[in-house]
Amino acid sequence: MSSATEAQALSGKLVRSQGVTAPAGFRGAGIAAGIKANGKPDLALVFNEGPDTTAAGVFTQNKVKAAPVLWSQQVLQTGKLRAVVLNSGGANACTGAPGFQDTHRTAEEVAGALSNWGTETGAVEVAVCSTGLIGDRLPMDKLIPGVTEVVHELAGGISGGTDAAYAIMTTDTVPKQAAFHHTDKWNVGGMAKGAGMLAPSLATMLSVVTTDAVATAQQLDEALRNATRLSYDRLDVDGATSTNDTVLLLASGASGVTPTQDELNAAVLAVCDDLADQMMADAEGVTKRVKVTVSGAASEDDALIGARTVARDSLVKTALFGSDPNWGRVLAAIGIAPIELNPDRISVSFNGSPVCVDGVGAPGARDVDLSGEDIEVVIDLGIGDSSVTIRTTDLSHAYVEENSAYSS
Amino acid sequence: MSSATEAQALSGKLVRSQGVTAPAGFRGAGIAAGIKANGKPDLALVFNEGPDTTAAGVFTQNKVKAAPVLWSQQVLQTGKLRAVVLNSGGANACTGAPGFQDTHRTAEEVAGALSNWGTETGAVEVAVCSTGLIGDRLPMDKLIPGVTEVVHELAGGISGGTDAAYAIMTTDTVPKQAAFHHTDKWNVGGMAKGAGMLAPSLATMLSVVTTDAVATAQQLDEALRNATRLSYDRLDVDGATSTNDTVLLLASGASGVTPTQDELNAAVLAVCDDLADQMMADAEGVTKRVKVTVSGAASEDDALIGARTVARDSLVKTALFGSDPNWGRVLAAIGIAPIELNPDRISVSFNGSPVCVDGVGAPGARDVDLSGEDIEVVIDLGIGDSSVTIRTTDLSHAYVEENSAYSS
Repeated sequence: MSSATEAQALSGKLVRSQGVTAPAGFRGAGIAAGIKANGKPDLALVFNEGPDTTAAGVFTQNKVKAAPVLWSQQVLQTGKLRAVVLNSGGANACTGAPGFQDTHRTAEEVAGALSNWGTETGAVEVAVCSTGLIGDRLPMDKLIPGVTEVVHELAGGISGGTDAAYAIMTTDTVPKQAAFHHTDKWNVGGMAKGAGMLAPSLATMLSVVTTDAVATAQQLDEALRNATRLSYDRLDVDGATSTNDTVLLLASGASGVTPTQDELNAAVLAVCDDLADQMMADAEGVTKRVKVTVSGAASEDDALIGARTVARDSLVKTALFGSDPNWGRVLAAIGIAPIELNPDRISVSFNGSPVCVDGVGAPGARDVDLSGEDIEVVIDLGIGDSSVTIRTTDLSHAYVEENSAYSS
Repeated sequence: MSSATEAQALSGKLVRSQGVTAPAGFRGAGIAAGIKANGKPDLALVFNEGPDTTAAGVFTQNKVKAAPVLWSQQVLQTGKLRAVVLNSGGANACTGAPGFQDTHRTAEEVAGALSNWGTETGAVEVAVCSTGLIGDRLPMDKLIPGVTEVVHELAGGISGGTDAAYAIMTTDTVPKQAAFHHTDKWNVGGMAKGAGMLAPSLATMLSVVTTDAVATAQQLDEALRNATRLSYDRLDVDGATSTNDTVLLLASGASGVTPTQDELNAAVLAVCDDLADQMMADAEGVTKRVKVTVSGAASEDDALIGARTVARDSLVKTALFGSDPNWGRVLAAIGIAPIELNPDRISVSFNGSPVCVDGVGAPGARDVDLSGEDIEVVIDLGIGDSSVTIRTTDLSHAYVEENSAYSS
């Protein structure tokens, strides 16, 4: 939680067994359309039955944007979405005008199939998300027949959302879902995928969040930007920002409840924060779940930049892989961050044990036990009151293995 | 070479068999003082016999600076150095006031030993460099007796410089030396060490460059800043900037020749550039020597930032380790660089084979052979005339292995 106000606003229960179909008014589906060569599920659909179809989205800050990002940014200008179609097995990035036409055609086909199915829908109401290898065209001969099938498979209840969560996985080993049930009888649900190329910049690889609350597009936008800033944007596995990052928030209004902005912010953040935690735990090659906190910073920006700099440092990450309490590398990393600091006031702890006090090694620093799977690194700059935590992972042999043989 | 002027100024021969004692007026030595537990050489001395003792230096931009960096920056304010003492086996960083006293005492001991040996020397004429694990005090009971010994070992000729080059190695597998013999009978020699934590920022781990040219401290400073900007500053193995980076340039004037500034710049750059190449080839865990060039950029700064962003990208580096021509990762990496670019005008080649043209994959891109040890990545932004090349390496299992077990 980012503030006391939001913590107070959060009254309810978070579960991981449900996702985008936990809120009323949403259906989901996931099928194997044959886009992936291995025959695993690769096409997902999230459908909003209404009565409302308000929506908001945040997208990658990468200047090289995939075709589906360009499309979805465009259609979201209306502040409304009826459906989101998502495929794994191909990013449709760096595919030029033909790739954009593929995305456009996919939205048209989804709109047509939903209209045939009984809900009049225009292509402009359909967001498209893609994930997978950058640079290849999608196999439209597989994808288009899949669109009809996935619409037929649309189901309410828990299973539809879970099927969708499976179908967006790439190198993820488990699906990622979370739902928050507010005591006032409205709900937020979400799913996400993301295992590598994971340093979201205003978004993450792919995430769809739903709610049955009544909310305007502007309220959804505020809730989503607040949530991504404090959750996905503070996850940094490898410093690499994808061409396809997309987070969408859709509201059906089906609960009939109109929460306050603070309540909505808190619930959306709770779901996104939990999904970010699941992404950290399932990141490519992860053997350690690491939280890097910079406290005592002059500003929140300084704390964020400092924590991110340490979280991205290859030498810190390899040391953590080796369970090596090599705190000197943390000092070397924070020392190059473009922030206000005084080397003689920096203190560092690993899992609560002080290893460096006022810039100098603490007794027993080399003997701190980091053999467990969870490591907390806290760097106190000792000059202010701001604190930020970044979720990251170690840099392991498995990361190198997985990423040296992805496209081949 | 950075310009036609400098290329013209460079008339002579570069060799790698000689280092800091190649220019007249310099002696060197390297011994095993017992600082390293494994008994390998760990204490080096470079001594300037004169007649001149002008000097210049550049140091790490890391805000966390080792004690020897703070000392050497201070004594260089005079623009004069008689000697440089260097130890491996310990960085003497994050060691507080006691660590600084150790450095001060080392300089005093060197000055005393040189004075006893026949050359009246003050501590303020002695630069100190240290490299190794961050955070531990140096074993002064080993280092101080070593100082007397290393002064007694001082030798001219080639062997003294080579001994010094061996004694500054840490995870380096080979010593790094280069010397340039100008046709006008003056010389530049240099040595360097650096294998990890290698993204020098105005300097590199440790490098001492010598010349027998006659030059003022200001001329040396210009030559050294020019050379480091174009050589060491364009080497980026792991994005990590050390607490101990130091590059020193000492002039003896023993040749009696006064080169022009352009001649001096060119010769110093030639030596530093060759040493940077040697450091790339011997970087920790290297299996591929990689040059990343960004051309067609709007400015040199843009080209530099773009090339560095790609060179640091873990997903690009693991793909290169796997000999995988995964050009989409290059696009994703350059797309997040804070520079001017148009995604539809970017073209990329691997070893001269086009893999992406105007933002879209080229035919045969997935079949380019990257199995060799040298890989050239060229990214043409297609919007300007500026070009910069960064030397880097792949991200391999060996890098992870070496860096997950360094301090333990």
